[in-house]
Amino acid sequence: MCRFVFYMGESLSVADLVTRPENSLINQSVRARERPEPLNGDGFGLAWYVDGETSPARFRSLTPAWSNANLDELARVTSSRCILAHVRAATSGNFEVSEANCHPFRHDRFAFMHNGHIPAFQQLRRSLMGRLSDAGFNSIRGTTDTEHVFALVSEHLRGREDQGSCQSLAAALSAAVATVRELIDAHAPGSHCYLNCVLTDGAHAVACRYSSDPDYIDSLYYNRGGNYRCDGDRCWMEPDTGDVRAILVSSEPLNKSAQWEPVPRNHMVLIERDLGLELQPI
Amino acid sequence: MCRFVFYMGESLSVADLVTRPENSLINQSVRARERPEPLNGDGFGLAWYVDGETSPARFRSLTPAWSNANLDELARVTSSRCILAHVRAATSGNFEVSEANCHPFRHDRFAFMHNGHIPAFQQLRRSLMGRLSDAGFNSIRGTTDTEHVFALVSEHLRGREDQGSCQSLAAALSAAVATVRELIDAHAPGSHCYLNCVLTDGAHAVACRYSSDPDYIDSLYYNRGGNYRCDGDRCWMEPDTGDVRAILVSSEPLNKSAQWEPVPRNHMVLIERDLGLELQPI
Amino acid sequence: MCRFVFYMGESLSVADLVTRPENSLINQSVRARERPEPLNGDGFGLAWYVDGETSPARFRSLTPAWSNANLDELARVTSSRCILAHVRAATSGNFEVSEANCHPFRHDRFAFMHNGHIPAFQQLRRSLMGRLSDAGFNSIRGTTDTEHVFALVSEHLRGREDQGSCQSLAAALSAAVATVRELIDAHAPGSHCYLNCVLTDGAHAVACRYSSDPDYIDSLYYNRGGNYRCDGDRCWMEPDTGDVRAILVSSEPLNKSAQWEPVPRNHMVLIERDLGLELQPI
Amino acid sequence: MCRFVFYMGESLSVADLVTRPENSLINQSVRARERPEPLNGDGFGLAWYVDGETSPARFRSLTPAWSNANLDELARVTSSRCILAHVRAATSGNFEVSEANCHPFRHDRFAFMHNGHIPAFQQLRRSLMGRLSDAGFNSIRGTTDTEHVFALVSEHLRGREDQGSCQSLAAALSAAVATVRELIDAHAPGSHCYLNCVLTDGAHAVACRYSSDPDYIDSLYYNRGGNYRCDGDRCWMEPDTGDVRAILVSSEPLNKSAQWEPVPRNHMVLIERDLGLELQPI
Repeated sequence: MCRFVFYMGESLSVADLVTRPENSLINQSVRARERPEPLNGDGFGLAWYVDGETSPARFRSLTPAWSNANLDELARVTSSRCILAHVRAATSGNFEVSEANCHPFRHDRFAFMHNGHIPAFQQLRRSLMGRLSDAGFNSIRGTTDTEHVFALVSEHLRGREDQGSCQSLAAALSAAVATVRELIDAHAPGSHCYLNCVLTDGAHAVACRYSSDPDYIDSLYYNRGGNYRCDGDRCWMEPDTGDVRAILVSSEPLNKSAQWEPVPRNHMVLIERDLGLELQPI
Repeated sequence: MCRFVFYMGESLSVADLVTRPENSLINQSVRARERPEPLNGDGFGLAWYVDGETSPARFRSLTPAWSNANLDELARVTSSRCILAHVRAATSGNFEVSEANCHPFRHDRFAFMHNGHIPAFQQLRRSLMGRLSDAGFNSIRGTTDTEHVFALVSEHLRGREDQGSCQSLAAALSAAVATVRELIDAHAPGSHCYLNCVLTDGAHAVACRYSSDPDYIDSLYYNRGGNYRCDGDRCWMEPDTGDVRAILVSSEPLNKSAQWEPVPRNHMVLIERDLGLELQPI
Repeated sequence: MCRFVFYMGESLSVADLVTRPENSLINQSVRARERPEPLNGDGFGLAWYVDGETSPARFRSLTPAWSNANLDELARVTSSRCILAHVRAATSGNFEVSEANCHPFRHDRFAFMHNGHIPAFQQLRRSLMGRLSDAGFNSIRGTTDTEHVFALVSEHLRGREDQGSCQSLAAALSAAVATVRELIDAHAPGSHCYLNCVLTDGAHAVACRYSSDPDYIDSLYYNRGGNYRCDGDRCWMEPDTGDVRAILVSSEPLNKSAQWEPVPRNHMVLIERDLGLELQPI
Repeated sequence: MCRFVFYMGESLSVADLVTRPENSLINQSVRARERPEPLNGDGFGLAWYVDGETSPARFRSLTPAWSNANLDELARVTSSRCILAHVRAATSGNFEVSEANCHPFRHDRFAFMHNGHIPAFQQLRRSLMGRLSDAGFNSIRGTTDTEHVFALVSEHLRGREDQGSCQSLAAALSAAVATVRELIDAHAPGSHCYLNCVLTDGAHAVACRYSSDPDYIDSLYYNRGGNYRCDGDRCWMEPDTGDVRAILVSSEPLNKSAQWEPVPRNHMVLIERDLGLELQPI
């Protein structure tokens, strides 16, 4: 089912998300606290935006995050103003552990990651692919529900590559969620889908916490403040005194602190280029 | 572009194909002799039939064959009356190196491997998938042209699972080749396809050497005789004195011997359960 | 800290140990029940004895057991009268995840696997290696404490390769444990070592459950009876009615049954070629 | 036997060494031009120095360089003033393919890589390790001759960590080469060793081209000039007009150009912080 963390703000070391915090993403790969199944050992991925490059850089591996020496090294020396990090738990029996199935996914300058799943995905996959353009159809290289949802999202972003905005990201994400619901109604009526995800172009971002199941929704938190930093394994967000320089969106709080706010059920978090933040129902 | 070797006959050690012969498949992974590009280092796979099991066993890995300690071990202790072994060269830039892309592919009791490629595969892939049943569509887990060709083959075998025969294998393979040609004519007219492959159900087999290009065809050989064995790296086929107990079909001869016959251009080799062998144009 | 299972008896499918039982070794890789830390995701290994081959076959991988398709396949088609299977949890921060560090280890016709650890191993490793013959010194290819303990064991077996017996295995294991204790006293006095392990030559075996720590010992069970089989995920040992044909030694019971006996603290289980079993203090 | 490239100068994209040039290191992994065996497919590694970090960053993988998507990504977005890149060919049969065996090796702020081999390494390894301090002994995590040579080098650098200079690097390297020769004379008299290597602390570097064999020496080139850049796959060194800003040391020229000078046989190239270059016999 996965865990993820997203950061936007002043340039930050990837280690401050992935390896240093008391409840770092590495720790969540071994022992997630807010999932029924604590293990997220089916690969991992990082994406980060680099000045002067349109497409985000990406590092993925099919081995577990907790023992990957390359991840430790990259986390130590990589800083960015926009970072996505994800540890994967392959949905039971359905999806292969492979690099092609590791999040984040990319299209052009966009990146996407997901925690959740689509029920009966094999039943509706063909219909879903039928709605894609040829470019979208051919973009799919793996077998995850996530990559297919992102292909739906990307259809809405195609052609708008140059005029990024929070609202266009939110519209694309909402449209994809609506399509998924429609496909479920047609192919697996009565089933529920779980879609916590982050979509960004490196300058704007939308995160959503969505479940069609009244009885279960995966956890998602945000944290916005003056600055986020770590000293050893002690990490903190400086309070917002009018000058916001850091926003985190994370499956679980990275540290014990009152600053982590749960994203309300079935809401999107819209993050503007200036780190303005708005909650909007989906 | 790949290299492969196929064996049917008396129970044989996998090592006698993969590690022992002077021009073993391992050696062909490093230094193939009859390909313009000698390297086949993008993963490998074995499939072998086991008494009492319908579906063939399979071992695949995305690392090169020449350094895989597990392959050495399995080759040493595994014997079978029907063995497929394949080393992969990912077609330039198009196809990911992953386990899902390693041959042989399987469906039910059938196994399939391929050396060659389909031009402009991205252009015709969607049409090809449109011709598949839902089961065929969902069977595809990787991104190779081979797996898609095998899905076409499998459509023709579906429902006939219980009445295997050489002729039904040959018919399925011929139909798939015809479909591929039709798709190329529609989507990449003037292009040529290269389809050396083996299809088996463990008791019968069909190999084909096919190219629509008058100027190039990949190598393929067969070797039929009384028995095939190795002593150290010296391997030999005992002459056929009326009692055929071994047939090999291989991209390249495994040893220096006059017994290796080239499969004629655009022909199939049909291998019966009793090791009867027939050549038939495709 | 690892989990393992060992089998000796009538030819058995590896799947009956690794994938089928309700508490199979695969399940123990995700969620061990009798370890403080339930996760054993740092690689795995199988060794099994094959008729006509002196050295046991081995399959190891640095990826987790739960998602390894090759392990599933091999377990399905491999049967043996003597099987070792192991899932690894790399001791915290000390030992790399690599194939060379996956158990079982082999020397000549012997195989060895371990659950536990040696404290302060870096401090005493050099002294330990100083006690090895040149052959023993050069045999070490990885960095685990286990491989070094096995090198000590092997020194005692060298030269006795042809006259295997339970007692010679037990003597070699006891001598190695004594050496380890001596090295700890010299280099890390007051520390405790944890040595649950299995040593076999394919015809005889010794398992030990040993801890120098009065406050902690890892779990180890044995189960001896008429026959061991699985039907789906339901596995059982037929009662011993005078004709013993199966012995299991396992870090945890593979199923809910009263037949699993804990190995007494600091004892060895000696298993004879005829499946006679004796407990002996170490 | 391996191929490598080293860069020191103005900040440079790793891609300008590894992926872009006509004879890039990736191309040398498939088809090296100046080795009898063209294949270097047994893993690879990068090390690069990052402002503000003492220890160089490192990325290594046991899969071949030519198909590694992460290497492509990192090469694209990583720039540094001091870069080491290496593709490995495991010496025949002796050395495992594992991450621990991939160059470059590191100790403190030093990095080291090697092309060549030490004959009869198993015979002399124990003596070599006997000359190491406990820290040096414990530093060794793999099985390559290279890592052991670097442990010898590091003994000479230990304690001098703060006062780096070309001369201290050259002295450490020369002493290690002398020790290796002495060990060969003792354990494998008449054998020859091949030691092309690079040692750096990020600010100074020494490369050596050394063979004790009068009949064979591996290739090594250097290239020093005003600036080194690529435009697509066309790469060039601007001529030295008094302002040197780039030095390359490479197993093979990366492009067709007269600027690549062979390092004279059994010489070291000493590279100063200001990119001053001196040749010195070893």
